[in-house]
Amino acid sequence: MNWNDRFSNHAERLRASKIRELMKFTSQPGIISFAGGMPDPAVFPESEIQSITGSWSRQEAATAMQYGPTPGYPPLLNTLGELLSSRRAIPMQNREIIITTGAQQALFLASRILINPGDTVLVEEPSFIGGMASFTANGAVLEGVPVRDDGLDLDILEQKLTQSMHAGQRISFLYTIPNFQNPSGITMSLKNRERLYAISREYQLVIIEDDPYGDLYFTGSQNDYKPIAALGDDAPVIYCGSLSKVLCPGFRLGWIAADPRFIEKCILSKQSVDACSPSFTQYLANELLVKKGFNLSLVRTREHYQVKRDRMTAAIQKHFPSVVNCSRPEGGFFIFCRLPNGVSGGKLLAKCIEKNVAFVTGEPFMVDPEEGDRFIRLAYSTADVEQIDTGIEITGAAIKEMIG
Amino acid sequence: MNWNDRFSNHAERLRASKIRELMKFTSQPGIISFAGGMPDPAVFPESEIQSITGSWSRQEAATAMQYGPTPGYPPLLNTLGELLSSRRAIPMQNREIIITTGAQQALFLASRILINPGDTVLVEEPSFIGGMASFTANGAVLEGVPVRDDGLDLDILEQKLTQSMHAGQRISFLYTIPNFQNPSGITMSLKNRERLYAISREYQLVIIEDDPYGDLYFTGSQNDYKPIAALGDDAPVIYCGSLSKVLCPGFRLGWIAADPRFIEKCILSKQSVDACSPSFTQYLANELLVKKGFNLSLVRTREHYQVKRDRMTAAIQKHFPSVVNCSRPEGGFFIFCRLPNGVSGGKLLAKCIEKNVAFVTGEPFMVDPEEGDRFIRLAYSTADVEQIDTGIEITGAAIKEMIG
Repeated sequence: MNWNDRFSNHAERLRASKIRELMKFTSQPGIISFAGGMPDPAVFPESEIQSITGSWSRQEAATAMQYGPTPGYPPLLNTLGELLSSRRAIPMQNREIIITTGAQQALFLASRILINPGDTVLVEEPSFIGGMASFTANGAVLEGVPVRDDGLDLDILEQKLTQSMHAGQRISFLYTIPNFQNPSGITMSLKNRERLYAISREYQLVIIEDDPYGDLYFTGSQNDYKPIAALGDDAPVIYCGSLSKVLCPGFRLGWIAADPRFIEKCILSKQSVDACSPSFTQYLANELLVKKGFNLSLVRTREHYQVKRDRMTAAIQKHFPSVVNCSRPEGGFFIFCRLPNGVSGGKLLAKCIEKNVAFVTGEPFMVDPEEGDRFIRLAYSTADVEQIDTGIEITGAAIKEMIG
Repeated sequence: MNWNDRFSNHAERLRASKIRELMKFTSQPGIISFAGGMPDPAVFPESEIQSITGSWSRQEAATAMQYGPTPGYPPLLNTLGELLSSRRAIPMQNREIIITTGAQQALFLASRILINPGDTVLVEEPSFIGGMASFTANGAVLEGVPVRDDGLDLDILEQKLTQSMHAGQRISFLYTIPNFQNPSGITMSLKNRERLYAISREYQLVIIEDDPYGDLYFTGSQNDYKPIAALGDDAPVIYCGSLSKVLCPGFRLGWIAADPRFIEKCILSKQSVDACSPSFTQYLANELLVKKGFNLSLVRTREHYQVKRDRMTAAIQKHFPSVVNCSRPEGGFFIFCRLPNGVSGGKLLAKCIEKNVAFVTGEPFMVDPEEGDRFIRLAYSTADVEQIDTGIEITGAAIKEMIG
């Protein structure tokens, strides 16, 4: 059988993601990995889950194991609605929620509802690989808007919008991660959020706001990391989130909160994609959020990652030459570093892997991959503090060697 | 915001599925429902799961809660490979497996890899709604091939293949459910499976074989329900299955077993769809399959549904007029009935719902919906035996009234 003759155009377009290929390698035992943005199992709610399944009623167990409605397990939909309204200040009266199989599916469904093949999608440069993969799989052409120290460059965004209006070009949406962005670690300033909200309203620019890390801030309060979706009710902002970083990724639970007409389309699309997300993990997630001290566990989770962020920042200060320019994230999992001229991220990575330290270069996060070789992303979420010290020391030594 | 201007062509094409709309209604308390093909919670592995989470190691719990590889949790991939090879006699040396978020996602991914918008997909008439929904969502034009008492009409299939060859028309694949088909309850004869295998090889016709019920036979042995994929290694047969009917649907676990080149494309496609299926339920499923007496629980599950099949068949014999022609399934969940001339399935359903009995008409299972109004599908999987008696008696009385 010649399968190549049978594959669809979609299948032909698919390419192996470099970062996922690398992941296989970096999960080898003995390696210090700053590569994957995986939560630390130390904060997983293991005993809480034991206590839930240890005492569920027959009726609860039956619900957890049965098919569920496509939009999601109704009690979890309620719980998420309350959390988004109380914690994130998002006006929920004109929004509905669909629970998705991880936030990855949120990005897949939301973009599938918006993109016609050939449409332009604006993404931050750098941006999240999984988001970009969904958009291109749905046929989008990506265009990057640079990220500055206070987030997306809004002057360049406005230029692009004006140009595209004049050219009659269709822009499907803008994709942004305002809090502790993956991969840059950068947080969009509140001023910029307000301006972006106004731009969205003025240009009727659909925004997909992805906020998987929003609860994991290390300084200030929730109010300092207010979603763009919380700034009003008259701009087309699609708000996506995830339970992967605050409960655990193995549940595969995320969500979209948006205009009911938008959610209705997502529900219809999801019916043919996987019918519903797992009732089993939706039931557990709801119990964890409602009954198992979620607020307290969130405080501990934040502290846990803050210790690691502090440790990595200190190690970078100590071991990296000052010509390396690293972000200092206010939350989330990632530090992004710009290497000095002449130092290739790819070559640095090769050197470090020989010494059992792994991370990823900026390449897969860029619309223009060549730009990416000047950057590396260091995740402090999974490694322990001793590994952080050792790994950063090794990386720093390798950079110094390459500078010569 | 005028969302209609922003939706993609895909979104515009989406229509609410009638059966799912109906499901909302039929889940009302007090109703006797033969509508949804939902497993009976009585056979769910509730206490086994308690025992697994009650005694997992930290390492196991951490794996269950972490991200997993896109193709699936490696121990479950091994277990499924062994089951397919030993129980279903499928030659696995030239096949690989990808675990999917329910078999619905298996059909979504497999068809996404094969369909270019406008392509023809051949489906049994009647066929599974979720399959047809995936194929049309991916842009296919469906063409029906009738199902006879021994399965798909292969003469008509061969005619269609010859015609399409002459017309230079691209047929993406044929979709079939050989065992206890949803909705017809019909089983394809072994003779027909062999002929279909030969046709697939001769015409290089890709077959998507969907086998969610294959383990739930009531008579004979596994050998009598051999998958088409088990008949050889030189025809392009994509084999899809599910754990929803033998463990529980709330896990959302299914799979595709196919040529490695095909699976590779599915993996790449899945990366942007939901990254991976839930590690949590994959871990539990593997423990259940390997350590918790799966063979024995399967025997009990078969017996459980056989009792219900027997009860419904007997009730139909007693209460339906003989002009109603019903299938007698050898396994699975469904009985399909052809109503006498002049009796509309839709009108019958409306009458029965007034009396708190629900089922579905043939309409949503048909490429040509008008044909469907002459049929009703009765699922015996969820209702208990008393409900089966009462519900069939009420339905029979309503039919008699309509015949007059």
